[in-house]
Amino acid sequence: MSFNAVETITRKRDGGKLPDDQIRWLIDAYTKGAIADEQMSALAMAVFFQGLDDRELATWMTAMIDSGSRMSFAGLPRFAVDKHSTGGVGDKVTLILAPLVAACGAAVPQLSGRGLGHTGGTLDKMEAIPGWRADLTDAEMRSQLADVGAVICAAGAGLCPADKKLYALRDVTGTVESIPLICASIMSKKIAEGASGLVLDVKVGSGAFMKTPERARELATRMVGLGKGAGVATVALLTDMSTPLGLTAGNALEVAESVEVLAGGGPSDLIDVTLALAREMVALAGLDVDPTDVLASGKAMDVWRAMVHAQGGDPDAPLPVAAHSQDIVAEADGYITSLDALGVGVASWRLGAGRARKEDPVQAGAGVVLHAKPGDRVTKGAPLMTLHTDTPDRFDDALDALSGAVKIGDTPVPQRPMVIDRIA
Amino acid sequence: MSFNAVETITRKRDGGKLPDDQIRWLIDAYTKGAIADEQMSALAMAVFFQGLDDRELATWMTAMIDSGSRMSFAGLPRFAVDKHSTGGVGDKVTLILAPLVAACGAAVPQLSGRGLGHTGGTLDKMEAIPGWRADLTDAEMRSQLADVGAVICAAGAGLCPADKKLYALRDVTGTVESIPLICASIMSKKIAEGASGLVLDVKVGSGAFMKTPERARELATRMVGLGKGAGVATVALLTDMSTPLGLTAGNALEVAESVEVLAGGGPSDLIDVTLALAREMVALAGLDVDPTDVLASGKAMDVWRAMVHAQGGDPDAPLPVAAHSQDIVAEADGYITSLDALGVGVASWRLGAGRARKEDPVQAGAGVVLHAKPGDRVTKGAPLMTLHTDTPDRFDDALDALSGAVKIGDTPVPQRPMVIDRIA
Repeated sequence: MSFNAVETITRKRDGGKLPDDQIRWLIDAYTKGAIADEQMSALAMAVFFQGLDDRELATWMTAMIDSGSRMSFAGLPRFAVDKHSTGGVGDKVTLILAPLVAACGAAVPQLSGRGLGHTGGTLDKMEAIPGWRADLTDAEMRSQLADVGAVICAAGAGLCPADKKLYALRDVTGTVESIPLICASIMSKKIAEGASGLVLDVKVGSGAFMKTPERARELATRMVGLGKGAGVATVALLTDMSTPLGLTAGNALEVAESVEVLAGGGPSDLIDVTLALAREMVALAGLDVDPTDVLASGKAMDVWRAMVHAQGGDPDAPLPVAAHSQDIVAEADGYITSLDALGVGVASWRLGAGRARKEDPVQAGAGVVLHAKPGDRVTKGAPLMTLHTDTPDRFDDALDALSGAVKIGDTPVPQRPMVIDRIA
Repeated sequence: MSFNAVETITRKRDGGKLPDDQIRWLIDAYTKGAIADEQMSALAMAVFFQGLDDRELATWMTAMIDSGSRMSFAGLPRFAVDKHSTGGVGDKVTLILAPLVAACGAAVPQLSGRGLGHTGGTLDKMEAIPGWRADLTDAEMRSQLADVGAVICAAGAGLCPADKKLYALRDVTGTVESIPLICASIMSKKIAEGASGLVLDVKVGSGAFMKTPERARELATRMVGLGKGAGVATVALLTDMSTPLGLTAGNALEVAESVEVLAGGGPSDLIDVTLALAREMVALAGLDVDPTDVLASGKAMDVWRAMVHAQGGDPDAPLPVAAHSQDIVAEADGYITSLDALGVGVASWRLGAGRARKEDPVQAGAGVVLHAKPGDRVTKGAPLMTLHTDTPDRFDDALDALSGAVKIGDTPVPQRPMVIDRIA
């Protein structure tokens, strides 16, 4: 079969549907370089405006999976269940969830990425732990899953090369924000990673990619449909990202907070989201245990320690601390009515916790620690948050990002429910 | 000033307006290669969907003009008036119009292009004349304009390099069909070419780029606005392109038909369109003559002969004739109710008159000669048209293109008016 790139672009541009064989040709030809970047970016923009229907999207996703290899956890003595978050500020859930769900009896293979922009990456966080390494061979990963039950590591290069190429293109061509393209990107990787069950944490709010519940619900619904269509049991939770999750944003700071939760402490919003996701994963794995009990038992902490240790990390080593810090204080007495997730995320990024370009290094100790959250009472002059960095010339940039991020009013606001909706 | 390519794309994508300095930066950066093709094609697709308002479009056009050099005909002893056609099947109007309007007293610099696809290029037609050359130096062009009054030649490389680069990109990325981008492309070149007056022939119908009067009117209105805004007196005529203009499509065939009109003969539709455009050009030039009289006087033929001769051509040399021909006959008695311009254009192209890729050669003698037009009575078995080519294996492809192109009915259809509307 032979198709034409321009006809493919104009067909989608004019609202037409692409036949399955044309989509398969397109993804294959783009991966091989027979369709040029400038053609694919024009098509991606056409898809931004005209969308892909369910059939087109499923075929597109499958073609991206078929551009590379697939992993399989068949033969593992545990049910393999995976979780994906669309990304938020202070979202360290994976660090707690992976050992917790493994302690419940499932296998949790968390193939993760590094951060770009204002949301941190799970690998960047884990790499704050002295000695820990992200790169495992397939054999190491499988063996750790069998022994420990949980692994957080980098995705292999052979998975979804079409998605890698297309994502890099979308990033520089203003075509990231397309729901079908986002769905295809996330789900192709997750399905290629071979989990039998998948729980999606779709973040909603200023710090998230989806700013409104409507958009988040659309994304979640289409991803759940794609997962089920591909034979993977899939559930999505919409969770709040209007304010940072927990009290920390930044790599080592988030590791410390995660360990606090594993030790039985930690902030309630973080615990709520983690347990809600854990219950979904445990249910998909068909296990009859309550993650709340398992967390309280200390077994999740045991798995965390084993998991860190298995990848060369020392769970007892002191975490890196940034060389400089600066407090931001309350400008009035009252109640915090809002604390903008995006502002905190950008501040943390600028302090050195994130990167602007793929090749940039990150600072392990940089970030933001919150001393109060929406609903809390504050006193004028008392510290609201502390900024941490190794490069103090970045404080001004971080303060700019935080301008207007905290609002203080006279009456307390009720705490928002963390789980907004469930799509199954 | 410094802008960001992704922000520029997403701003337009989301329906925003681009400030003037951002548009100037964009065109300059793209011309210099600082904005990549894959970014510009995504932006072009965003413009396809979101448009450019009048201010944005004028700035965009001016920035494309400013990417190169401008010609000027100031100092010429005649008013320089130019014509542009959006392209149609059998559209040999320039060949007649340039010498005719020069014979009326204006200077007519027709910088023209070669054809791509089903509409022929003026230079391809002129090159069917033995010895004639399209490439002139600026000095040769000015001297011929002063002496003869008319010149048809290739545009210099220094005009609108931004448009050349962008047009080549749009051609392979499915972003040609955007009214503002078409307007900017046409008008930037015409204004850079330095004419003081400009008449636009906007073709409407199956053989034209604009299939409906509404789209054609929109294109014409925006181009007239751009021209006037840039200080060039501009008028547009919308003319019919539902059926081929005249009785021929193909390079030497169209030259022969043009010479027939210059000699006082030729088909009435071709004469009507040519005279309507000539009257507009003469009026813009402020000349008090009737082109009908000038055509009848033979003075236009004199200018044609001088113009061909000045560029190395022999106006008396026999024109090339294709080696093979084949008739298509009427399948029934009756009246021709339609004769599809696109079908004839594609047939002529496939017979060898046009090119599929820029670097392809064209056949001088290939094309289609019509023996009847809509409204004419035909008899079953009588020839409707004759196909000409040097490569007879192409007859089948041409016949495919003509399948269904001719419709014969029981009652005569009234002839359509050639000039549909005038935008000034």
